Amino acid sequence: MTSPTPRNTAKETPQGTSVRNTSDAFHLAIPAHDLDAAQDFYVTKLGCKLARRYDDRITLDFFGDQVVCHLTPGEPAQPESLYPRHFGVTFREAADFEALHACAVMRKIPFYHEVSVRFGGLVEEHRTFVLVDPSGNLLEFKHYNDPRMMY
Amino acid sequence: MTSPTPRNTAKETPQGTSVRNTSDAFHLAIPAHDLDAAQDFYVTKLGCKLARRYDDRITLDFFGDQVVCHLTPGEPAQPESLYPRHFGVTFREAADFEALHACAVMRKIPFYHEVSVRFGGLVEEHRTFVLVDPSGNLLEFKHYNDPRMMY
Amino acid sequence: MTSPTPRNTAKETPQGTSVRNTSDAFHLAIPAHDLDAAQDFYVTKLGCKLARRYDDRITLDFFGDQVVCHLTPGEPAQPESLYPRHFGVTFREAADFEALHACAVMRKIPFYHEVSVRFGGLVEEHRTFVLVDPSGNLLEFKHYNDPRMMY
Amino acid sequence: MTSPTPRNTAKETPQGTSVRNTSDAFHLAIPAHDLDAAQDFYVTKLGCKLARRYDDRITLDFFGDQVVCHLTPGEPAQPESLYPRHFGVTFREAADFEALHACAVMRKIPFYHEVSVRFGGLVEEHRTFVLVDPSGNLLEFKHYNDPRMMY
Amino acid sequence: MTSPTPRNTAKETPQGTSVRNTSDAFHLAIPAHDLDAAQDFYVTKLGCKLARRYDDRITLDFFGDQVVCHLTPGEPAQPESLYPRHFGVTFREAADFEALHACAVMRKIPFYHEVSVRFGGLVEEHRTFVLVDPSGNLLEFKHYNDPRMMY
Amino acid sequence: MTSPTPRNTAKETPQGTSVRNTSDAFHLAIPAHDLDAAQDFYVTKLGCKLARRYDDRITLDFFGDQVVCHLTPGEPAQPESLYPRHFGVTFREAADFEALHACAVMRKIPFYHEVSVRFGGLVEEHRTFVLVDPSGNLLEFKHYNDPRMMY
Amino acid sequence: MTSPTPRNTAKETPQGTSVRNTSDAFHLAIPAHDLDAAQDFYVTKLGCKLARRYDDRITLDFFGDQVVCHLTPGEPAQPESLYPRHFGVTFREAADFEALHACAVMRKIPFYHEVSVRFGGLVEEHRTFVLVDPSGNLLEFKHYNDPRMMY
Amino acid sequence: MTSPTPRNTAKETPQGTSVRNTSDAFHLAIPAHDLDAAQDFYVTKLGCKLARRYDDRITLDFFGDQVVCHLTPGEPAQPESLYPRHFGVTFREAADFEALHACAVMRKIPFYHEVSVRFGGLVEEHRTFVLVDPSGNLLEFKHYNDPRMMY
Repeated sequence: MTSPTPRNTAKETPQGTSVRNTSDAFHLAIPAHDLDAAQDFYVTKLGCKLARRYDDRITLDFFGDQVVCHLTPGEPAQPESLYPRHFGVTFREAADFEALHACAVMRKIPFYHEVSVRFGGLVEEHRTFVLVDPSGNLLEFKHYNDPRMMY
Repeated sequence: MTSPTPRNTAKETPQGTSVRNTSDAFHLAIPAHDLDAAQDFYVTKLGCKLARRYDDRITLDFFGDQVVCHLTPGEPAQPESLYPRHFGVTFREAADFEALHACAVMRKIPFYHEVSVRFGGLVEEHRTFVLVDPSGNLLEFKHYNDPRMMY
Repeated sequence: MTSPTPRNTAKETPQGTSVRNTSDAFHLAIPAHDLDAAQDFYVTKLGCKLARRYDDRITLDFFGDQVVCHLTPGEPAQPESLYPRHFGVTFREAADFEALHACAVMRKIPFYHEVSVRFGGLVEEHRTFVLVDPSGNLLEFKHYNDPRMMY
Repeated sequence: MTSPTPRNTAKETPQGTSVRNTSDAFHLAIPAHDLDAAQDFYVTKLGCKLARRYDDRITLDFFGDQVVCHLTPGEPAQPESLYPRHFGVTFREAADFEALHACAVMRKIPFYHEVSVRFGGLVEEHRTFVLVDPSGNLLEFKHYNDPRMMY
Repeated sequence: MTSPTPRNTAKETPQGTSVRNTSDAFHLAIPAHDLDAAQDFYVTKLGCKLARRYDDRITLDFFGDQVVCHLTPGEPAQPESLYPRHFGVTFREAADFEALHACAVMRKIPFYHEVSVRFGGLVEEHRTFVLVDPSGNLLEFKHYNDPRMMY
Repeated sequence: MTSPTPRNTAKETPQGTSVRNTSDAFHLAIPAHDLDAAQDFYVTKLGCKLARRYDDRITLDFFGDQVVCHLTPGEPAQPESLYPRHFGVTFREAADFEALHACAVMRKIPFYHEVSVRFGGLVEEHRTFVLVDPSGNLLEFKHYNDPRMMY
Repeated sequence: MTSPTPRNTAKETPQGTSVRNTSDAFHLAIPAHDLDAAQDFYVTKLGCKLARRYDDRITLDFFGDQVVCHLTPGEPAQPESLYPRHFGVTFREAADFEALHACAVMRKIPFYHEVSVRFGGLVEEHRTFVLVDPSGNLLEFKHYNDPRMMY
Repeated sequence: MTSPTPRNTAKETPQGTSVRNTSDAFHLAIPAHDLDAAQDFYVTKLGCKLARRYDDRITLDFFGDQVVCHLTPGEPAQPESLYPRHFGVTFREAADFEALHACAVMRKIPFYHEVSVRFGGLVEEHRTFVLVDPSGNLLEFKHYNDPRMMY
């Protein structure tokens, strides 16, 4: 079997079927045990925008979607496992994945897992890293070689 | 104080600053205690698309983002409260909110909360309803009068 | 169960998750027994654009996708059934569905089935009509109330 | 005759007039002799999304368009020729063509024709490969050097 | 023959296949016998933007495309006929057609032909009016009921 | 002179040539005498998003552009005149103009000028209102009947 | 004076303010002395799409805009000068300019001027070539280094 | 700590969450002491488009937004400091930043500050240069490595 003639490969990345062309916003509510710490983590460190602040929650423009941190009594738990509960962004462009990773390193955001490759050699191959917020919520960021695998 | 001259109001809805124009995808991992039940809920009833099915999880195109249901041992818990943990979609268009509500009614998807108005008379006014999936995860769908409040 | 407060319903149609935002083109090759007749049907009557004409085929910009009519020996067959083989367009906007229907009527394009409603009262409810080209290929055009059902 | 000054050629591919910027969906109905086999081929192997499954058909989000596999009695036929009947996608970006080819190879999808170049040296030059589904339907995927030739 | 069920017709106009989604610009060079008069006509009256002014020409952002008025010796000719030479814009939205017409009336731009309907009752039905610039160039503006007829 | 046949006027607003389709951001630096007061005005009241907060300035996502409030010694001046210095947003959609006005009223943001119509009966006709921030900066919001006049 | 730090220059071309994001179509009417020759030139050679053919004219989708060739008695004139009357496309992407030039060469379309650089060293620098149609109409195609100069 | 596998880095720049996808226009009013000088600076030198000219002001399409120069009595002041008042554009693409810088150099627009790098090594790193208009208004143009820092 011959492989396809390599042509123009230096200048392109796959686009896949363009995803998320929607003006709707995903929203996710998560617990926070300290709103100042949450704002420091999401706004000052991760670079998200603060949309609103109330006494019992902050709302964030989290990479174009909404994350709401609800003030929750008690102490943050140590996350035990990435499964079954975490959230994050799958970037279309490798450069966005890398820029966010660089941001996390420069601003010393705590990593739960450093960058690694999953499913190497399969169509589902992607890079991933996991951050942990002050309340123990896990944030996973990913980039797939083939954007059709983003779902 | 005079109110603004009502002009063209019959033909427009506010657009706000257009949001989520991104080709990235939010992704959320949640527990599922039965993958067939999860697929039935999300694909057959809610109308999401099944992207991939593995032995231990299904991945979904959930209104343009990715939701992954991870097979988790044990029994589904009854959800105790909408806070601090739920997820869903904030629709830009009222018609999409209403169409999804109609879908939930016609297909007899269980409601955790029926449609109600929150923050009536404030800028943050919005309608909301909450569904519950077979593993007790709560899904909230919203529509704001003023799309700038979507965050 | 209360229905959602009807608000703004006069000005909106559901958008669903925006589909087909892609610069790729679907392409479909079909048989034609007479290229002049095919060009008359698709370009002069249906209003598609002729992209290229060769001795053995014509290529068409068919509502944004490519349809190629390949010259095929023999006589056109009478279509026996809409299933399992037909093609067409599912319009997002009702007005496009209605404009094409009006075009077919005004230009006396032969109908295989006139407009009817399928799955009335279900989420999958849609209107549909079916045209037949000079080689007996069936073209179905549809409009769904809820665009999320377009797939 | 002088050729144009080569400038910036390393960083660009032609865009042509942007095509298919439409929210309508092409839809194609094809025969399938076994719905499980069809779902395995289109969803698990080819990476399309399953939109709906009924007793007599499955509906697919096929690269942004809709393909419906209708359950059809009898045995799959061996495809005799690419003409006059086949379907597929013409990719705007070479990288998408190559990513799908890589997917087909990694997941051992049966090829009807491996990658080849057609009309080499003409404006219509393009690469193409052809897959065959479990019911003998032929799927052709293409990439043109000059996107204006996509029609 | 039954007409299609009128549904949602109050809120929609046909979209047709979306046209001109391109970042290229059409450009047209025309004669002008007086650059001040040309600027007054195109910028001050018609509301186009002046991009550049040189001694021998002005360049204009004419409804998103480029029109260049080249200073030409001699006297302006009276236009004898709309054919074979004129230019203008075919608006997708009726409201843009009407707004430009209102602008021409309010600012007393000379009409060559007032608004009329062409091809009434046919699919090609459209409204049109024709303006004349100080050098006798004819500008035609149109709006088609069915945007697929814009070409 | 006959006016154009009124057709479809109930369902459309003019679009003009689509403006500001750019991924660049305008940025404006203005003085602030108290950063807490500035954040309260722009974020909590006006509904802008806080992007970053430093000791000497806050940066805002102001309707899609960037406004930076620089901490400036001294007392806020009373604004003497709208000219020559003010800033704001010209909304394409009347509904956005009206929604912001409603927001200002409900949240009791101080007005410098209430809503009025300027250039009534001319092509340049628009509605406008002016707010004043805690440092005396004037913010003007506008909506033109004809979007081509937005510049 | 120092020049800016060269950064990322290998991967980008300027975008300028995005132009022509409009669904309106420019239209241009030109004389043709032979409709078959016109169709051969514009469709078969230049790769434009034929939208409609009548006895007295053909209408073309010319790079996303409409060109209409009106049948005109008499003989084609030899074009005397590029000024003051010609038309064409200013491409945003150099690759589109080069692809069209390659098309013209491969299909032996007659050149009026081969590729040359105008205003070299100035901000207005651009490449240009000029074709001539069978009726002597001149078509100029351009590419500017700085897309803001496209107007 | 390992850095992420460098993959595809030659062909991409980060996109960040896409900003300013809005059809609204920012508008800014500034003083001008001589309208001819202002038009020469903004249109002829900087390459902005002149939208309208009145006796007491000119309105400009300034990189997609509106800047209005209001005729103001008195003499232009020498700008004392970049803070707290200046305006400009933050470009998404480095190439646009560089093209504008090249334009300023070629056309000898006066610089207030030449290109420099701010916040080198931090996530907020960006390049910037500052121009001065004939009335002493300061214009700053910027490009951030990470577009999420544009706000």
